[in-house]
Amino acid sequence: MGNEIQDPGIGTQFKRPTKRVINRDGTYNVIKKGGQRGFRDIFKYMIEISWLRFFGLLFAGYIGMNLVFTIIYYLIGCENIVGIRPDGPPAFIQTFFFSVQTFTTVGYGTLSPTGFPTQSVATIEAFIGFLSFSLATGLAYGRFSRPNSKIIFSDHVLYSKYKDGHSIKIKLANERDNVLLEVTAKLILTMDKVLPNGEIEKHYFRLPLEIDHIELLPFTWTLVHKIDEESPFWGINKKEIYAANPEFLVLLKGFDETFSQHVHTKRSFITSDIKWNQQFSKIFAPNEDGVIEFDVKDINQIKPENDE
Amino acid sequence: MGNEIQDPGIGTQFKRPTKRVINRDGTYNVIKKGGQRGFRDIFKYMIEISWLRFFGLLFAGYIGMNLVFTIIYYLIGCENIVGIRPDGPPAFIQTFFFSVQTFTTVGYGTLSPTGFPTQSVATIEAFIGFLSFSLATGLAYGRFSRPNSKIIFSDHVLYSKYKDGHSIKIKLANERDNVLLEVTAKLILTMDKVLPNGEIEKHYFRLPLEIDHIELLPFTWTLVHKIDEESPFWGINKKEIYAANPEFLVLLKGFDETFSQHVHTKRSFITSDIKWNQQFSKIFAPNEDGVIEFDVKDINQIKPENDE
Amino acid sequence: MGNEIQDPGIGTQFKRPTKRVINRDGTYNVIKKGGQRGFRDIFKYMIEISWLRFFGLLFAGYIGMNLVFTIIYYLIGCENIVGIRPDGPPAFIQTFFFSVQTFTTVGYGTLSPTGFPTQSVATIEAFIGFLSFSLATGLAYGRFSRPNSKIIFSDHVLYSKYKDGHSIKIKLANERDNVLLEVTAKLILTMDKVLPNGEIEKHYFRLPLEIDHIELLPFTWTLVHKIDEESPFWGINKKEIYAANPEFLVLLKGFDETFSQHVHTKRSFITSDIKWNQQFSKIFAPNEDGVIEFDVKDINQIKPENDE
Amino acid sequence: MGNEIQDPGIGTQFKRPTKRVINRDGTYNVIKKGGQRGFRDIFKYMIEISWLRFFGLLFAGYIGMNLVFTIIYYLIGCENIVGIRPDGPPAFIQTFFFSVQTFTTVGYGTLSPTGFPTQSVATIEAFIGFLSFSLATGLAYGRFSRPNSKIIFSDHVLYSKYKDGHSIKIKLANERDNVLLEVTAKLILTMDKVLPNGEIEKHYFRLPLEIDHIELLPFTWTLVHKIDEESPFWGINKKEIYAANPEFLVLLKGFDETFSQHVHTKRSFITSDIKWNQQFSKIFAPNEDGVIEFDVKDINQIKPENDE
Repeated sequence: MGNEIQDPGIGTQFKRPTKRVINRDGTYNVIKKGGQRGFRDIFKYMIEISWLRFFGLLFAGYIGMNLVFTIIYYLIGCENIVGIRPDGPPAFIQTFFFSVQTFTTVGYGTLSPTGFPTQSVATIEAFIGFLSFSLATGLAYGRFSRPNSKIIFSDHVLYSKYKDGHSIKIKLANERDNVLLEVTAKLILTMDKVLPNGEIEKHYFRLPLEIDHIELLPFTWTLVHKIDEESPFWGINKKEIYAANPEFLVLLKGFDETFSQHVHTKRSFITSDIKWNQQFSKIFAPNEDGVIEFDVKDINQIKPENDE
Repeated sequence: MGNEIQDPGIGTQFKRPTKRVINRDGTYNVIKKGGQRGFRDIFKYMIEISWLRFFGLLFAGYIGMNLVFTIIYYLIGCENIVGIRPDGPPAFIQTFFFSVQTFTTVGYGTLSPTGFPTQSVATIEAFIGFLSFSLATGLAYGRFSRPNSKIIFSDHVLYSKYKDGHSIKIKLANERDNVLLEVTAKLILTMDKVLPNGEIEKHYFRLPLEIDHIELLPFTWTLVHKIDEESPFWGINKKEIYAANPEFLVLLKGFDETFSQHVHTKRSFITSDIKWNQQFSKIFAPNEDGVIEFDVKDINQIKPENDE
Repeated sequence: MGNEIQDPGIGTQFKRPTKRVINRDGTYNVIKKGGQRGFRDIFKYMIEISWLRFFGLLFAGYIGMNLVFTIIYYLIGCENIVGIRPDGPPAFIQTFFFSVQTFTTVGYGTLSPTGFPTQSVATIEAFIGFLSFSLATGLAYGRFSRPNSKIIFSDHVLYSKYKDGHSIKIKLANERDNVLLEVTAKLILTMDKVLPNGEIEKHYFRLPLEIDHIELLPFTWTLVHKIDEESPFWGINKKEIYAANPEFLVLLKGFDETFSQHVHTKRSFITSDIKWNQQFSKIFAPNEDGVIEFDVKDINQIKPENDE
Repeated sequence: MGNEIQDPGIGTQFKRPTKRVINRDGTYNVIKKGGQRGFRDIFKYMIEISWLRFFGLLFAGYIGMNLVFTIIYYLIGCENIVGIRPDGPPAFIQTFFFSVQTFTTVGYGTLSPTGFPTQSVATIEAFIGFLSFSLATGLAYGRFSRPNSKIIFSDHVLYSKYKDGHSIKIKLANERDNVLLEVTAKLILTMDKVLPNGEIEKHYFRLPLEIDHIELLPFTWTLVHKIDEESPFWGINKKEIYAANPEFLVLLKGFDETFSQHVHTKRSFITSDIKWNQQFSKIFAPNEDGVIEFDVKDINQIKPENDE
């Protein structure tokens, strides 16, 4: 077929049917083993989690680290911490507060170390507090500086009337306020062919879009693939489509003006995401002042075609 | 018409006339609802405001955060802060200073916490001071590292004589000292067509420029669109132009050598920004030493064409 | 020969045979003298070493810096440090702890400076502690923000059957979990020609690949150069190949979605890395749930061709 | 002439002869007035100066800021600083040390504020110390993260024999150890034409290079423009060349693998930089081990052509 392309990186021969290769949210649905883990994976994790979890983990680390040092000071002997009061909370608790005052470099001085072992441990703890600070700052900035444009896609792929035939439609919008420029979309389709020996041969198609590049994305953008003679959907019926286990992959890239960064997003749709003979509702319109207004949550508004 | 292009992302059918879609300063004139807000929007806000406001907000946050902790310490009981002097300012004020000394980790020690509850709160406050520091550093660097090239545009679009016909001219310059390289400009025109049913159909045109790419931008750059047979302005008069509610959109991109970043700028002009039969004055010239000199504020110097 | 290209930057005439120009790991095998060294080379070093070594060096610097200040305070006179206890560790040790408390800004106050000289040195030490903190934070973030995709390559270049002829094959995979998009590969071959005067003339070839661009790299990618009439390997035998001292250079670039950065990797293979008449084993396959699974360490699994 | 191009952004008509438009080091030789200055210009300045000057300025700012606060505390009254000793250095000096202990958050506690006014100023000072820290960290990282590849160019442009004719040659190398990939060079020539009215008309030429793109830059690269029939140097003599006041502009771009950044460099040469009938010496060669060796400082080694 005309639009068939080479393997875009996924593979072509499989011994049995595969689940979707790209999850709905664009991550890979693959179990990769043997990869090297490192400190940077922690970084990756720490910048991808939510702010709540991020602060929570930092706080847990802070308490945990202080507990470790408290135990060390306690084992050396609390008598080496000047200022622990017999009439105060238990010595372990007071030692914990001494540790906090050292780690954060508050150092009121009402609790202070004495003797070589305790002073040495305090020297190390202050250094670790110092380092933790640097690392937390690096993490905070790492979180801040990731591009924060967030493209949302319609939940469904529509099979819709278009001009004098049919089309495949997917809708998207930028959920955030930052400005995306020079946005380019690619729509790739995977279809399985079952070989006589039961193995699966994946075929890939680049589905041409009516518009595949826009300069600006202020509102929404509907990707439209017209089903013409070149299209893999030309002349096949619903049943044949389902049999081919199709997976649609949208690859989007643009330039985030706010952070001067190139951003890429991907999104995958499978058979159960297809809606037949539906159209997306138009969700943006000028209000009374002539200013265009819309609600990004309306991106999923669709209507049956006979309603038109 | 020859230069007509596909929708660059704005839409083509509207129920009524729209106001400008791009504001003068390049931001979108759109009311977007339902978008998700998050911590990163605070970041975006904090890096886009002026330095004065930035420092002001940080200071307000610092005072506010300390007030919150002061209230907590006060409710627990000021007797748990060792060193509050009966002959000093009111206990609340002294508690506030204790809070400051904890938050900033100064910790002179003349004021210090005692008892489990107060010490625990101080443990949390020192942690929050610690985090605030990290976040403020992230914000400061985020502000620093944004590209600081600032393109200024002429206030007007000129309709000027050019060669043996006419042209549309827009002037621009880099207001800052940093170096922009490989600067590329696109000029897009929107014109409305009123349909019989009163709806508006927007048409888009890419206006070809005499020069649309320069290697360097040391001085000023005048974008010139020659009105030839292919141009949407060919053979139509002023009244027809006004009726079409034209909006000019300049999209500029370049590479900021100082920060090794790609930068994009956009600017919109509407009907009221058009000046007829005017020319931009030449504003840069070699001085007595042969060094070229100009004042970026002169970018708006224009003169009627019969003066020439 | 058809695929011969211009010098890609390495040079063409050498007085004697050269060792590989690109090391196995992609670094240059060259001795460059006279280059300017600077503070930034320290940065480069500090962000490229392992985390263990990084923390170790920071700790060594911390101890070293404190020793320097301890000596200065000691020379000025320990009597200028209030709080040194005659019944404690030696004065030098106590002075060291005072230095630590100043450098880290812990400042318990049980040790404090007095007199102009000691206070002045403490003023400088606190400033240097302050700066060290800034630099350490910069280094930590510099380490975090480097792209952490890590491409691993097969240890060998295979000479394998392919379609109705032969091919050169190299396999690669992304060892980490982050997502690489739009990956492009170039395969360049260097071959030496010995001139009558004993000098070496290097010839360069761009070896066309069956697929040289993939959209996604979820699993592995095998680069395949088909040996056709245009190929420099067409019609020459093993002995002639070894005589030409071939060096294969793979240049890979892609976009790391996690960090929104373009990344480049290179890898070099020499004669001893060639394996004749072998094939790479297929190492990824759907598991029982249909999810594709593989172990990146299996990238070197090869098998003789007659096994097939 | 065949290679003439449009104005690359410099202008074409000048009332009198101009000095070089691009300085030797690539900066613009232009006096720009009226540009807006801001906090970010300080940032730009602080990241471009040498490390010595950078640390010096930070230290000066540290001392200066503390002096300002010392004066404020002094005016409020030193009796509000607990711990100033009558037998110590003058009160102003002791107040300065108190300020330092507050600004850096060391806070030993031997000096501490009392009373509302002094405590309030200390609250502000600790905040400013806090902020200074953030800004210094931002600056330090800004300095670290700038691409540190440094291209050095030969001091001269050579007019050299090349193949069966002549050429213009410029040599360059990467002075640092970091790896530049995909390096592309453009060579632009400006020549003046004096109009009958004494005004200057600048003409621009793109001088095609024998090789204008290299994949790697491990050693040196000699840019070669062959003077053929299309070249503006074809058939004109030395005197005519000098009369045209030529300026050569080299624009180089590449990808710095170490920092994953695109980098651009430019360099300008004028009449006095031309050397006639000279060749660059070959400065890199394999040493006894076959490893290629060179000294970047040898980039200016040239020899008269009759020596060959």
